[in-house]
Amino acid sequence: MSVKLDGNIFVTGTNRGIGLELVKQLAEKTGVKSHIYACCREPEGTGAEALRQLATQYPGKITIIKLDTSDEDSISAAVHTVSERISDAGLNLLINNAAINKPPIPAALADTGKKDMMDVYETNVAGPFLLTKMFLPLLQRAAEKDSSGDKMSCRRSAIINISTLISSMEKCPETFPMAQMYPYRTSKAALNMLTRCQAEDFKSHNILVTAIHPGWVRTAMGGEQAPMTTEDSVLSMLSVMPSLSNKDSGMLLDFEGNRIPW
Amino acid sequence: MSVKLDGNIFVTGTNRGIGLELVKQLAEKTGVKSHIYACCREPEGTGAEALRQLATQYPGKITIIKLDTSDEDSISAAVHTVSERISDAGLNLLINNAAINKPPIPAALADTGKKDMMDVYETNVAGPFLLTKMFLPLLQRAAEKDSSGDKMSCRRSAIINISTLISSMEKCPETFPMAQMYPYRTSKAALNMLTRCQAEDFKSHNILVTAIHPGWVRTAMGGEQAPMTTEDSVLSMLSVMPSLSNKDSGMLLDFEGNRIPW
Ligand SMILES: NC(=O)c1ccc[n+]([C@@H]2O[C@H](COP(=O)([O-])OP(=O)(O)OC[C@H]3O[C@@H](n4cnc5c(N)ncnc54)[C@H](OP(=O)(O)O)[C@@H]3O)[C@@H](O)[C@H]2O)c1
Ligand SMILES: NC(=O)c1ccc[n+]([C@@H]2O[C@H](COP(=O)([O-])OP(=O)(O)OC[C@H]3O[C@@H](n4cnc5c(N)ncnc54)[C@H](OP(=O)(O)O)[C@@H]3O)[C@@H](O)[C@H]2O)c1
Repeated sequence: MSVKLDGNIFVTGTNRGIGLELVKQLAEKTGVKSHIYACCREPEGTGAEALRQLATQYPGKITIIKLDTSDEDSISAAVHTVSERISDAGLNLLINNAAINKPPIPAALADTGKKDMMDVYETNVAGPFLLTKMFLPLLQRAAEKDSSGDKMSCRRSAIINISTLISSMEKCPETFPMAQMYPYRTSKAALNMLTRCQAEDFKSHNILVTAIHPGWVRTAMGGEQAPMTTEDSVLSMLSVMPSLSNKDSGMLLDFEGNRIPW
Repeated sequence: MSVKLDGNIFVTGTNRGIGLELVKQLAEKTGVKSHIYACCREPEGTGAEALRQLATQYPGKITIIKLDTSDEDSISAAVHTVSERISDAGLNLLINNAAINKPPIPAALADTGKKDMMDVYETNVAGPFLLTKMFLPLLQRAAEKDSSGDKMSCRRSAIINISTLISSMEKCPETFPMAQMYPYRTSKAALNMLTRCQAEDFKSHNILVTAIHPGWVRTAMGGEQAPMTTEDSVLSMLSVMPSLSNKDSGMLLDFEGNRIPW
């Protein structure tokens, strides 16, 4: 990692999968002044055991925040809690990682209903939309505190939307036969458009917005045949993030920093 | 028009705007054996006056169907009604035209809430998704009845999803400053992905699926400054549709048939 990530970092969906590993490596690799707000739906539940252990390993560095990204009140409450802590310094990095994929793979058309379409959009797009909107003042604050002119970076103020290779329309003919996943694909294409809009909207504030594909990763969502471990995926993404700059805002990149076509 | 459009044609959102003009020109230009199923939310309402008049002008050629594309039961009922009439011949052309754009333009981030995101997605994406899924057997029927091998066309069996230039992620930096419209842009990017998935999914059935941008058109949605009349937009789209073939399936085209980048 050339320049370390630092400051106040907020990550959604961190009780398992890629999100949990993001918190682990961020805790290890960021400076002493940085703080990680690690979100999950049920901080007290058995599904958050590993996250709670991690927080104990890094005392004072990780705060677990209750957040269901499909629930507007829950988003408000989480933003409120965090705002009280970081209203001066602002938020440096927001990682929208939480997502769902329904119905079960291969998620063929015949098995997919309207509720799948709506639920997946709510969590994968409306959630990041609203959370980012509510955090905008704190992202602006962090950007303003930095004196590097119009240079954007993940240390200064940035939004990373975790997208996927299969959000790429260009590549759809290659990826479709493997798994249809209409709700997930349409939601992630919409997330890319959200990224693109946010990048335009926030560029005058010097806030960077980039969508990143984590690779095909062995998690509950990725499945057991996935070739990549969460460790390698996150290692790779966390070496790309510090190098992101203005030219990467509004783009979809893979875990190695290569552009993926829309 | 090189080869006329023909057969059973189903169009959503036809009581006003581009949809109404589509029905008008389709009634004029299609052959005697073709029939147009023209949908609207309130066939008896004052907002459907012009459509009812049109149906009277072309006796036996236009059937008005009650359809709210945001309501699953309404979609089922409409498909059921039409199925009883065309179960033998099948459906040749489905035009997903109905759509909404909320909040009012310029639809800035500050004015946009979660409900806008969800409502717009429901009508603009979940609606076409479900309607098309339910019509699939009738689209397959029409495709099978045709003996032109693997040649796709709008006469044989096709889905046209009415999209927009501002669904283009590539062009977002150009189009964003004029109107932000997060819910609409994300929904239409998702509709493009839906088009792309359907094109892959249905290609073995020889069903063509293309997204078309109608131009910037003077309607309630397009606004008064829009340079194009509904007449010119539809004239142009109806001269493009008959020329569409396999190479256009899964593409986003403008009203003149030019490709728009994702
Ligand atoms: N794995 C892959 O191969 C792959 C490939 C491309 C992209 N991605 C993307 O990478 C990201 C992480 O995926 P993953 O593989 O780590 O998935 P995962 O193992 O299924 O974990 C998903 C995480 O999101 C959380 N979540 C889901 N819905 C939520 C909600 N409404 N509110 C709050 N949290 C919620 C889950 O919490 P609960 O435990 O409470 O459900 C869990 O922590 C996602 O954006 C995914 O689309 C993954
Ligand atoms: N006008 C433009 O400049 C422009 C540019 C690019 C793309 N487009 C696209 O072109 C298509 C037609 O737009 P337009 O300009 O004709 O819009 P419009 O004048 O606002 O008409 C919209 C039509 O959709 C119907 N509709 C809306 N929600 C519906 C629902 N839930 N169920 C059934 N019908 C519904 C409306 O019916 P009600 O009367 O019941 O509301 C109306 O008939 C849309 O897909 C739009 O996105 C338009």
